[in-house]
Amino acid sequence: MTRYDQLAGIIGERIEQGLYTCGERLPSVRTLSQEHEVSISTVQQAYRVLEERQLIEARPKSGYFVSQQHELAALPAMSRPAQRPVEISQWDLVLKLLRADPEDGMVHLGIGMPDISSPTLRPLMKALSRIALQPDLRGMAYGDICGAPALREQIARLLVDSGNLLSWEDIMITSGCHEALSIAIHALCQPGDIVAVDSPSFHGVTQTLKAFGIKALEIPTDPVTGISLEALELALEQWPIKAIQVTPNCNNPLGYIMPDSHKQALLTLAQGYDTPIIEDDVYGDLAYRYPRPVTIKSLDEDGRVLLCSSFSKTLAPGLRIGWIAPGRYMEQATHMKYISTGATALQPQLAVAEFVRQGGYQKHLRRMRAHYQHNCDIMTGWIKTYFPPETRVSRPQGSFLLWIEMPEHFDSLRLNRQLDQVGVQIAVGPIFSASGKYRHCMRLSYALALTPAIEQAVKTIGNAVKRQLDEVNA
Amino acid sequence: MTRYDQLAGIIGERIEQGLYTCGERLPSVRTLSQEHEVSISTVQQAYRVLEERQLIEARPKSGYFVSQQHELAALPAMSRPAQRPVEISQWDLVLKLLRADPEDGMVHLGIGMPDISSPTLRPLMKALSRIALQPDLRGMAYGDICGAPALREQIARLLVDSGNLLSWEDIMITSGCHEALSIAIHALCQPGDIVAVDSPSFHGVTQTLKAFGIKALEIPTDPVTGISLEALELALEQWPIKAIQVTPNCNNPLGYIMPDSHKQALLTLAQGYDTPIIEDDVYGDLAYRYPRPVTIKSLDEDGRVLLCSSFSKTLAPGLRIGWIAPGRYMEQATHMKYISTGATALQPQLAVAEFVRQGGYQKHLRRMRAHYQHNCDIMTGWIKTYFPPETRVSRPQGSFLLWIEMPEHFDSLRLNRQLDQVGVQIAVGPIFSASGKYRHCMRLSYALALTPAIEQAVKTIGNAVKRQLDEVNA
Ligand SMILES: Cc1ncc(COP(=O)(O)O)c(C=O)c1O
Ligand SMILES: Cc1ncc(COP(=O)(O)O)c(C=O)c1O
Repeated sequence: MTRYDQLAGIIGERIEQGLYTCGERLPSVRTLSQEHEVSISTVQQAYRVLEERQLIEARPKSGYFVSQQHELAALPAMSRPAQRPVEISQWDLVLKLLRADPEDGMVHLGIGMPDISSPTLRPLMKALSRIALQPDLRGMAYGDICGAPALREQIARLLVDSGNLLSWEDIMITSGCHEALSIAIHALCQPGDIVAVDSPSFHGVTQTLKAFGIKALEIPTDPVTGISLEALELALEQWPIKAIQVTPNCNNPLGYIMPDSHKQALLTLAQGYDTPIIEDDVYGDLAYRYPRPVTIKSLDEDGRVLLCSSFSKTLAPGLRIGWIAPGRYMEQATHMKYISTGATALQPQLAVAEFVRQGGYQKHLRRMRAHYQHNCDIMTGWIKTYFPPETRVSRPQGSFLLWIEMPEHFDSLRLNRQLDQVGVQIAVGPIFSASGKYRHCMRLSYALALTPAIEQAVKTIGNAVKRQLDEVNA
Repeated sequence: MTRYDQLAGIIGERIEQGLYTCGERLPSVRTLSQEHEVSISTVQQAYRVLEERQLIEARPKSGYFVSQQHELAALPAMSRPAQRPVEISQWDLVLKLLRADPEDGMVHLGIGMPDISSPTLRPLMKALSRIALQPDLRGMAYGDICGAPALREQIARLLVDSGNLLSWEDIMITSGCHEALSIAIHALCQPGDIVAVDSPSFHGVTQTLKAFGIKALEIPTDPVTGISLEALELALEQWPIKAIQVTPNCNNPLGYIMPDSHKQALLTLAQGYDTPIIEDDVYGDLAYRYPRPVTIKSLDEDGRVLLCSSFSKTLAPGLRIGWIAPGRYMEQATHMKYISTGATALQPQLAVAEFVRQGGYQKHLRRMRAHYQHNCDIMTGWIKTYFPPETRVSRPQGSFLLWIEMPEHFDSLRLNRQLDQVGVQIAVGPIFSASGKYRHCMRLSYALALTPAIEQAVKTIGNAVKRQLDEVNA
């Protein structure tokens, strides 16, 4: 990461946070150069980056201004889920999303698929191809049940970036983050138990709870700071909660990064009630700011955090390479890994290890972070342009997912049926709730290159939304 | 498969079954040629195959005789497990086996790893390598949760060989047979339930039951015909059994192929008690006879059999490609697949599909069947030579695993500790029992090319066994 990228990140964040408001003049190049102890040209390059992202505009002879276009839409409201443990529903809706065929000719804005077209992935594909041809068929045997040491070492190295000082032996390779989460839940809970989750939350987790006969307790969640600690504490008082599951960094679907102080407070709370935390960091490396945010795991002193992640969002989901750092639950996790899939496929592990060791991962990440951040601005702009004014939109701090909230009486399932007919796919709100809340919400992905066809699709959605609201109001 | 291979298979089986006994003269070439309506030279070639396998010997001017060397050791006894549901133990012993490092310089006779050194696997590796380099990164996206249709079609085609007429939509791809079994169990059972298993049985299944809080009911099992139907019926009468789990073809560890009539009777029994059957066919394609035996699934009329298998033993375990044909439980199985690992890695699926379509699978199988059958004879010979006479040995009808039974008071755990010191690894009996029975047994693999080092290792085991028995008897 260059100095100017870093500086652009800092200023960009200030704008996002509203420290500089729409149309406001930004500090002069000279001021910034002194403040940050960088050269004039570094500041100029940083401003150029922000111009490209359409966050700021240069006005001849007057300097740089926060882009008019960038007036932010209102944020979604704090969520208010039912604060009692519920049996999980919505499997039919999740299945419909999973079954979406990427080659059916529709515009797919609903799925959590990253962009895998970047040439920075090519060395990984070459490594995969080379390893397949190794004459000793390395990678075709059963590997270690905990994964290839070579990869676990590289992951331990990467984890330093998020504040984690782990040894390779603390890490177990899994078939994607999905298996990591499933192992964590299965290692900690019995049927009938209660797990507290942020809300809205990733359907993979709630469906796993469902499969294990566990109840979800959805906790109100702020679209900027994450799970409400007050609500969580009340819940911990009232219910025998077996685990807390959160996605604090680049949350799916809300996009926030939980502030560090909030992470510490959450951990302290969990310590107070002696409750383990299942932390999903699958999008953490895609934070737009660098260095990336720390994990709760990095603050953990007594091994109560089970960190789950994967290369699915940062590299490619087809690899099916994830990991879990289960802290003090390593033994249970190993048993669950054995009975879930046995060892994980070895060849992709060896290929990823090589790719990371040779610096390919960081290079790819830099590119993808910039790509997604750029797309975020454009997509947010389109929503502002094409959606009705009462629309509330999340402000993603990383990753490639946008959460959109309509007035309470809006029905995204109805919208979805209409969009099906015209070849546009979205993710409907209720799949992000154990109890089917968020019917008035939807999630859109901006991972792929934003073509005119996608702009057209967003316009189509916006029009359909307006029509439905008009009908209801009429 | 040529006519003479087929004929050799038939005669070989008759010898194995004791229809022709040790030293007995075999039918003349002319007689066989008439009986089987084949040419003289076909019979001669068949006899040559059996000579190579050291099953028969030619005596000049007198004809062919069953090899003296081939006097069979006694079969293991019918197993007599405790006939009540038990909580499963033995995880520590299983873990020790799993953790065995194939490169620690020991002679590994304990693990269930196939031989992956055959050149007939090369086209598969080439396909893997080629697919990794496809410019559209085919196989790097999330695939269909049920697996790639191309592979499911090929598997449906292969399954015809074992009598199954299934559509590709009846089949779901999994991360190995392990995940298939785990999905089946999870789809059918709740914690506290009871599952009936053959005994001895594969530790992957019992450990999965353990993880789900399910009890195992071990049913007495015959080393030639499989699970005792009488004992199973009694158990079904007495206990609320939720599922029956068996490995009827090339059983691990006993090596038998359950006779067809026995399969039908088992299914009828399951129908009578309306109980589903989880059938593990992971070694079925490695039966020494061709055509291979049918599955219970092929006799199933009401979708109660969940067929589980993989390419781990036939091709290579590192692929982590298995499948389940869950019959009427497809919906539950799909949910369990989603929460277990999400979709299965796509590239290896595409590579295997191509390999099968181009005939590579059948070609490889032919070679491996001959290889394992050849090794079976040699390994059995070594056991006879180096083990004490009271040793009982299974008569594998396929696959590459030998079950060895010593007198009741023998302790394979003690043996194992001694062998650890001298660089020989075996699988101890108790891991094949939910309740830790079979301490007097062990399992040896003869998958790999049988080198002098392996012969030496078998001799070392035999001597250690003799010493222990002498000590105990002294
Ligand atoms: C928050 C979150 N966790 C985990 C996953 C699953 O990741 P993987 O594909 O590595 O199993 C996803 C993917 O959708 C996700 O959004
Ligand atoms: C009987 C049996 N079933 C299933 C398995 C697991 O197969 P996979 O490696 O495909 O998960 C094994 C492997 O040891 C086995 O012996």
